Amino acid sequence: MIHAAYGRIKPAVRRTPLLSSPFLDEIAGRQLFVKPECLQHTGSFKFRGAYSALSAMDPDLRARGVIAFSSGNHAQGVAMAAQMHGTSAVIIMPADAPRLKIENTKALGAEVVLYDRAREDRGEIGARLSAERGLTLIKPFDEPLVIAGQASVGLEIAAQCDAVEAEVLVPCGGGGLTSGVALALSQARPNWRVHPVEPEGFDDATRSLVSGRREENHRRDGSICDAIITPSLGEITFPILQKHCAAGIVVSEQEALEAMALAFKRLKIVIEPGGAVALAAALFHANKLSADTVIAVASGGNVDAEMFVRALTAGN
Amino acid sequence: MIHAAYGRIKPAVRRTPLLSSPFLDEIAGRQLFVKPECLQHTGSFKFRGAYSALSAMDPDLRARGVIAFSSGNHAQGVAMAAQMHGTSAVIIMPADAPRLKIENTKALGAEVVLYDRAREDRGEIGARLSAERGLTLIKPFDEPLVIAGQASVGLEIAAQCDAVEAEVLVPCGGGGLTSGVALALSQARPNWRVHPVEPEGFDDATRSLVSGRREENHRRDGSICDAIITPSLGEITFPILQKHCAAGIVVSEQEALEAMALAFKRLKIVIEPGGAVALAAALFHANKLSADTVIAVASGGNVDAEMFVRALTAGN
Repeated sequence: MIHAAYGRIKPAVRRTPLLSSPFLDEIAGRQLFVKPECLQHTGSFKFRGAYSALSAMDPDLRARGVIAFSSGNHAQGVAMAAQMHGTSAVIIMPADAPRLKIENTKALGAEVVLYDRAREDRGEIGARLSAERGLTLIKPFDEPLVIAGQASVGLEIAAQCDAVEAEVLVPCGGGGLTSGVALALSQARPNWRVHPVEPEGFDDATRSLVSGRREENHRRDGSICDAIITPSLGEITFPILQKHCAAGIVVSEQEALEAMALAFKRLKIVIEPGGAVALAAALFHANKLSADTVIAVASGGNVDAEMFVRALTAGN
Repeated sequence: MIHAAYGRIKPAVRRTPLLSSPFLDEIAGRQLFVKPECLQHTGSFKFRGAYSALSAMDPDLRARGVIAFSSGNHAQGVAMAAQMHGTSAVIIMPADAPRLKIENTKALGAEVVLYDRAREDRGEIGARLSAERGLTLIKPFDEPLVIAGQASVGLEIAAQCDAVEAEVLVPCGGGGLTSGVALALSQARPNWRVHPVEPEGFDDATRSLVSGRREENHRRDGSICDAIITPSLGEITFPILQKHCAAGIVVSEQEALEAMALAFKRLKIVIEPGGAVALAAALFHANKLSADTVIAVASGGNVDAEMFVRALTAGN
């Protein structure tokens, strides 16, 4: 399924390079590669999974359109994938979502339906629209076709790095990217280890891997790592992480900001806080790793100028 | 010579992708691609030419070491290329060069020799060291092996874009990158046009192409585009530009800063002011272009946090 997905999405996705810098190697104490998915279409890996799902749909069903709930990276990924398939996308977003994200999603051709978080149920709105128009829901992570699309990040890493032993660090929210990468590498690089990485206070995956059951985050917001503060792993993603992932690593927000500043200075890429946690783990939690080669996925770069300036100030 | 150079450097250079964004296409009024050489080793295209020169040297001569004059991107390119060839590099830098650039060049294994701009002649120091140790000078642009290395940017673009008609915009200082790209594309894409792009006040290449002789810049400093304010084109690069380039385009510093901010927002890459002039031309001087497809080379990303913050503030 992973290889079939890669065959479908390969002509459309950007094959992001592996970046490195001797200065980062020195901090990490080993060979460190960064997979910059911030350079992917729409600025995050989410485009891969969305395109995978869209491209696998029955053409008649797809022509009726798709629907997604998201105020972030998934919204833009689905919007662009729908546009590239010549179909329509409805994205249900809270009315108080950042204006830029609403505008971006509209500019990518999607119909944005705003709802009032306090008074309306987005599920109800989605169900009504889906029934009326025959729209297909594209889930953000707990969907095999989406996971298979994100797995292409793992396939590319395996093709780009021939280290015998390596550890791969993946920013983890709902677990779509982490489970996809872990599945791909379990076959392509069975000796490697994949670690989910999370910000402090939103370490449900790390705790879930310890306790053996799906733990939830106590808070739902209040993190600068907005892209990866999903309440819990999914029903599908959690068992994949259990089977194929090593222990989670938790980093502080300050470490994420410093990783952003170092990626600016040494790699010339823009990473958002949630997308920088894996790089932060590689740089500042070296004692939790043992392989000579580490690959950190930088999962997205959709950060506003204000937050980026804060990172540059924090890390210099 | 260009293809031979590419054969030598291919295993070592990063093949930078072509990036794009529908938002930038809309501003440019056409399909716009960006070739992000800021993602190249050492943060600029300079590594290509340096590696080309080093890799073509007689091994015995190379083993004695190389020397370069530079306070900027060429210094780091030569230092890293020398390190990768297991030989030594002496870089002669002014004592008042930014400390970070001196430190970076040292960290890449080079021996940095500082001189006093007011009281010492760097040419004399270089000649003495070269004679004493048998070092070979690696010129920054007016050297066929260096030009042939920079030409790999053109070869990659030709392989990455199959548009029938296109215009390629290249930040131009001494003309090493511009002449290399123009030479490569004159063969690979004879229908395309290559434009050098310069900042206001440092438009010697644009004026030289009009007058038919090598014009000089009136000022030697005072530009934020420090990477491309070379006094004039080279003796070798100028005739290549005359033969293979279309008219130059001149942009303002403010436009370069706004292009940096848009590259941050839409492409998630870090470009330095001098490296952003070609993108600025594509975005803000669309009336000087006629092809449906434009490719702007983003030649480097070695910018400090302070200047980058200034760009984000200017462009948002």
